[in-house]
Amino acid sequence: MNIQELTRSLKTDNGSKIILLVADGLGGLPVEPGGPTELEAAATPNLDRLAAENVCGLAVPVLPGITPGSGPGHLGLFGYDPLEVQIGRGVLEALGIDLTLGPADVASRGNFCTVNASGELVDRRAGRIPTETCARLVEKLRQIRIQGIDLTIEPVREYRFAVVFKGQDLYGEVEDTDPQVTGVPPLAPKARNARSERMASIAAEFIAQARAILKDEKPANMLMLRGFARKPPIPSMQELYGVRAAAIAVYPMYRGLARLVGMNVLPPVANLTEQIACLRENWEKFDFFFFHFKYTDSTGEDGNFPMKVKRIEELDARIPEIMALQPDVLIVTGDHSTPSLLKSHSWHPVPVLLASRHCRPDRATTFGERECILGGLGQFEARYLLPIALGHAGRLQKYGA
Amino acid sequence: MNIQELTRSLKTDNGSKIILLVADGLGGLPVEPGGPTELEAAATPNLDRLAAENVCGLAVPVLPGITPGSGPGHLGLFGYDPLEVQIGRGVLEALGIDLTLGPADVASRGNFCTVNASGELVDRRAGRIPTETCARLVEKLRQIRIQGIDLTIEPVREYRFAVVFKGQDLYGEVEDTDPQVTGVPPLAPKARNARSERMASIAAEFIAQARAILKDEKPANMLMLRGFARKPPIPSMQELYGVRAAAIAVYPMYRGLARLVGMNVLPPVANLTEQIACLRENWEKFDFFFFHFKYTDSTGEDGNFPMKVKRIEELDARIPEIMALQPDVLIVTGDHSTPSLLKSHSWHPVPVLLASRHCRPDRATTFGERECILGGLGQFEARYLLPIALGHAGRLQKYGA
Repeated sequence: MNIQELTRSLKTDNGSKIILLVADGLGGLPVEPGGPTELEAAATPNLDRLAAENVCGLAVPVLPGITPGSGPGHLGLFGYDPLEVQIGRGVLEALGIDLTLGPADVASRGNFCTVNASGELVDRRAGRIPTETCARLVEKLRQIRIQGIDLTIEPVREYRFAVVFKGQDLYGEVEDTDPQVTGVPPLAPKARNARSERMASIAAEFIAQARAILKDEKPANMLMLRGFARKPPIPSMQELYGVRAAAIAVYPMYRGLARLVGMNVLPPVANLTEQIACLRENWEKFDFFFFHFKYTDSTGEDGNFPMKVKRIEELDARIPEIMALQPDVLIVTGDHSTPSLLKSHSWHPVPVLLASRHCRPDRATTFGERECILGGLGQFEARYLLPIALGHAGRLQKYGA
Repeated sequence: MNIQELTRSLKTDNGSKIILLVADGLGGLPVEPGGPTELEAAATPNLDRLAAENVCGLAVPVLPGITPGSGPGHLGLFGYDPLEVQIGRGVLEALGIDLTLGPADVASRGNFCTVNASGELVDRRAGRIPTETCARLVEKLRQIRIQGIDLTIEPVREYRFAVVFKGQDLYGEVEDTDPQVTGVPPLAPKARNARSERMASIAAEFIAQARAILKDEKPANMLMLRGFARKPPIPSMQELYGVRAAAIAVYPMYRGLARLVGMNVLPPVANLTEQIACLRENWEKFDFFFFHFKYTDSTGEDGNFPMKVKRIEELDARIPEIMALQPDVLIVTGDHSTPSLLKSHSWHPVPVLLASRHCRPDRATTFGERECILGGLGQFEARYLLPIALGHAGRLQKYGA
C-alpha cells in the first residue's frame, strides 16, 4: 500500500478548504558567502508571522540531489510520485500552450530546421526564426491531411511548435527525428514497439507532406518531431483525495499540469490581483486551490537576486487578503528552488510553511531556508505535503483500528 | 532488501537488554496559541535529564499526515511496516478481549441490533444495551452448534461482542452483514473469493440460529457480523531481531498486539507499580520488554489536558526505578499522538527519547515536542526505531565487509 492508496481509502469530506500557494522556484542561495538567500533577504512580515505561529519544514522535490523540471516539481506537490508519473516532452509542450489532450492522443514537439540541397541538417533551429514566422509556417502546415487523423498544430515560440495527433490506435513510443547533430539528414520516425508502428508511419507521412510545403522557405525549409507521448493515465485529485480542486494560474504550463491531475482550471487571469479575485469568487465552489505565482522562478532564472527579492515581497503583501478567506490550511512553498546564483532550477530543498489551527508549533520564527531547518515538518519528500495538508484539514480518517 | 531482511540477517545476541516504554498517544498540541503541549507542560525532571544526556527525535507513525489506530501505531514501533501488515477488525476485537487466535481461525466482530417484524433494521446498535445484557445474550448464543466448527463467543461492551470460528478451511474474505443504514434487512454474509465461500455459509448458519435464539428479545432481537479476518501471518520478533521479547501491558488490546508479533505476554497486572515489579521479576528471562502505559492516550481522548499532564508526570516519577535495572537501551515514546485539543489520535510525529551508553548526544535539552526537533535521531518512520534500538544495543552486526 502506498501513500496514494492510503489517501484514497481514508479520504473524507468535512467541507474544509486548502490553499496550495506555489511560489515557483521559491528556494534560493546566498550570492555572498554567509549572506541571506532571496527569501531571507526579502521583507516578509506576513509570511514571517505565519511561520512563527504555525509549522515549517523543507520539501525535497524528487529525491536528494535531483533537480526537477516544472512537471515533476508540481506533480510532487500534487501528491504524485514524480518518479512514477512521467510526462512526455510532447505532452508538456502541448499543455504549455493550453492544448487539451484526450487520453488516446499523441502529442509531439516540433522544430523548424534548415537542410541543404542533399537534405542534410545545416541548422537544427532554423536560425531561431521569430515567433511570427513560426506562426505563419504553422498556418501553412495546417493544409496537411492524413486519413483518419485529426491534427492540431500550434506555434510555441521561435522555431518551436506543437502537434497533437488524434485518431485510432496511436501510441507514443516513437523515436525523435532530430539526430542532435548537423551534417546528416533528419532521422525517419522509428517505432520502439509494435503498437507504435502506426504512429511512426503517420509521423513519416506528416513529415513528407511538410517537406513539400516548406521546401521553398528560407531558412525554415524542414521540420523535425520530438518527444512523442500520450498523456500519462493518472487518477484525479478528486479520486485520490476527495477534493474538488481548482487551479488559478497565469501561465498555460501550470494550467496544463493542473488539468493533468483533474483540477478544474479556472479561466486565465493576468496578475496577482486577478488571481486573488478569482480565488475569492470561486471560494465556495471548491475545496482545494492551487494558486501559482511564476515570478519567483523567472527572476531566479534571470539571475536577478534583487528582483526575486522584490517579487517575494510582492507576494508577501497579498498574504492578508488570502488569509482573510480563512482557509483551514494554507501552504506556501515552491515546486523547486531557483537560486539567482545558479540562474536555473536546483536540487536544494524548498521552504514550506503550513498554517492551520491544528499544526504543532515549532522553532521556526520567520520564513526562510535556515529557519525552516528548525521546522516541525522536518525535511521530507514533496509528495507527502498533500497528505500532510489533508491531515491538518481533517480530511483523512484514521488508518486501522 | 528491506530493513527487516537486514535485521534478520545481521542480528546477534550479546545479552543486552532493551526496554520500549510506550506512553500511548504521548504526542500533543498546545491548547493556546504558542503554549506548551501536554509533554512540555508536564514537570518531567527524570525524562528531561535523560533527554539532555542522550538522543531524541520524532517518529512518524505510518507516513506523513496519516493518523494511525493502535494496531498500525504499535506494529510500527515493533519494527513492522504498518502498510504491509494489516490487522483485520475482527482480529483486533478478539485481541482486545484477550482471546487467543490460531493462524487458521477467523475472528469477527458482532453487533446486537434491532429489526422490525419485516426483518428491517430499526437500530444498528440495539439502543446500546448495557454490557450486562450483552453478556446474557452472548451466553444464550453459546447454544449455537455448527458441524465441524468450534465457536468462541465473548461479550465486548454494550452491543458489541466477538466471535472466533475455528475449523478446517476457513478464510476471512467475507463481506460485513451490516448494511450501514436502517430501513433494510441485514445483509447475507457474502464471500469475496472462492476459498471464503465456506466461511460465508458458516456465518449464514450462525446468523440463522442466532435469529431464532434472539427473536423474542427486546431490543436486541438480531445480530450482525463484521470485520471477518484471519490473524496476519507475520514473523516473530525473535526471528527478526533475535530477542526474547516480553510484553507488560495492563490492557488486553496491547497484550494482543504483542502476541501477534510473537512476544511472551506476561500475566495481566493492574497498574504501574505492578508493571515495574513484573519488569524486575522477569528481567533475567528476556532481552526486550514492551512496557505499555495507557493513560496518556485515554486522557488525551477525553480532551483532558491537565490530566494528561498529570499522567505524564506520574510516568516520569517511575523512570528512576526503571533505569535502576540498567537497561542497555531505554526508549520512551508513543504509538501516535493524542492531543487533548483534538480528543483523538492524530498524525503529528511522536517525541522519541533513546537512552544508551552508545548514543550520540544532541541539542535537545528536555523531553518535549519542540526540543525533539533538535534531536539527533531526526524525524523518521516509526518502523525504523527498533533497528535503531538494536544498533545501540550492539545487537546488529556490520552489513557488508
